[in-house]
Amino acid sequence: MGSISIIGTGNMARTIGARAVAGGNTVEIMGRDQSKAAGLAKALGGGTTTGEWGAAPAGDIVVVALLHDGVVPAVTQYGDALAGKVIVDISNPFNSAFDGLAHREETSVAQEADRAAPAGAHVVKAFNTVFRHVLEKGRPDIFIAGDDAQAKASVEAFIASLGLRALDVGGLKMAHWLEGVGVVTVGLANHGVGDLNFSLGVTGLPA
Amino acid sequence: MGSISIIGTGNMARTIGARAVAGGNTVEIMGRDQSKAAGLAKALGGGTTTGEWGAAPAGDIVVVALLHDGVVPAVTQYGDALAGKVIVDISNPFNSAFDGLAHREETSVAQEADRAAPAGAHVVKAFNTVFRHVLEKGRPDIFIAGDDAQAKASVEAFIASLGLRALDVGGLKMAHWLEGVGVVTVGLANHGVGDLNFSLGVTGLPA
Repeated sequence: MGSISIIGTGNMARTIGARAVAGGNTVEIMGRDQSKAAGLAKALGGGTTTGEWGAAPAGDIVVVALLHDGVVPAVTQYGDALAGKVIVDISNPFNSAFDGLAHREETSVAQEADRAAPAGAHVVKAFNTVFRHVLEKGRPDIFIAGDDAQAKASVEAFIASLGLRALDVGGLKMAHWLEGVGVVTVGLANHGVGDLNFSLGVTGLPA
Repeated sequence: MGSISIIGTGNMARTIGARAVAGGNTVEIMGRDQSKAAGLAKALGGGTTTGEWGAAPAGDIVVVALLHDGVVPAVTQYGDALAGKVIVDISNPFNSAFDGLAHREETSVAQEADRAAPAGAHVVKAFNTVFRHVLEKGRPDIFIAGDDAQAKASVEAFIASLGLRALDVGGLKMAHWLEGVGVVTVGLANHGVGDLNFSLGVTGLPA
C-alpha cells in the first residue's frame, strides 16, 4: 500500500481520501485552512495526518483535489516541495456552459501543471471522468494519462488499492482528450443518461 | 424500420450495411465505383439497391462512410441532392500519430459537413467511437451528437433497429469531443487494453 498526500479539503479530497484509507494507504491532508484539514483527517480516520500547506508532502503520490483553476497556482506555490513527487491532476476545466473546456488551446490542466512542476516531479491525469458519488460507492474505470512510466505505474498501483481498474490512454498530451471525456460524461448526464449514476468505461465486448 | 443510404463501399459501409439489413431497414449503396457498389449491394442482400454517386439518395438517413478527409468534399459534391436528409458522419479525423485530431481547431468533421450541407439537411455524429469489428459482432453503445432533435431521433431509431443503444451527448459541437473519445479509444488500444475487442460505453453503475 502506498503513501498519499491530498491537497484540498473538498468533496473529491474526502471521497478519494476515504477510498485511500479503506485501501490501506497512509493518507495526509493538506489544506489552506488547517482546521478544515484537521477535521477531514479526523473524519477519514485510519491514522490520517495533516501537513502544512506548501510544505513537502509526506506522500509519494500527491493528489491535487482543487478546482481546476487552483491546480497550477498550487503546484507553482508548492514549487520545489513537490520535487520527486508523482502529482495527480483530477480536475475538469469545464467552460461555463459545460459543453467544452475553459481553455481553447489543445492543452490540459495536467500539461500546464507539469510545466509548473519542479524537476523530477511527474504529473499523471486520473479520476477526472468520474462523478464524485460514483467514485464514492461504485467501481468505475479510471482512465490515466502521463509521460513517465514509473509515475504511471505507481498511480496504477494506488488505483488498484482502491479496488478499481486503471486504464492507460497514453502520454500526458492525452490528458486533453481525457478532459474531453469529462465533457462527454457531463453531456450525457445533461441529455437524459443515467441520472448521474454512471461512468464511462470499457464495455461492449463482443460475445 | 427506416430507409438508409450509405455513401461508400469500404469496411464501415459493409458493416453498417449488414447490421442495417439485419435490422429490417431498406438499404441503398452509393459508390464512386458503380461496380463496387453493386458488389456490396449484392453481398448485403435483403433487397439492397445501388444509387448513382451524387444523385439524390433514396434513404431518409444518409450515412457517409468515407475516410475523414472525403466527407466534406462528398457532402459538397452531393450538394442539393442532400436537401432534407439526415446526414450521419461516422469519421475519425486522427492525426498521423493517432494521439490527436488532424484539425487543431475546436471543430469536427461533423460540424464542417453541416456547414457544407444544403438547407434543410442536418448532420448527426455517430458510430465514430466504435471499432469496426466490434460494431460487426458486438453490442457497443453508440454516442450521438447533433443540433436537430428530429434528426437525432431518427438516428436513434435507426440505431435501435440495429439492436444497439444510442447515447445522446448533446449538440453538434459535442462532435469535437466525440472525435476525442475516438482518440481515447485508440489510445487505450495502443496501451494494452482489450486487443481492440472493446468499446467505451456507459458502465460502472454503483451497486
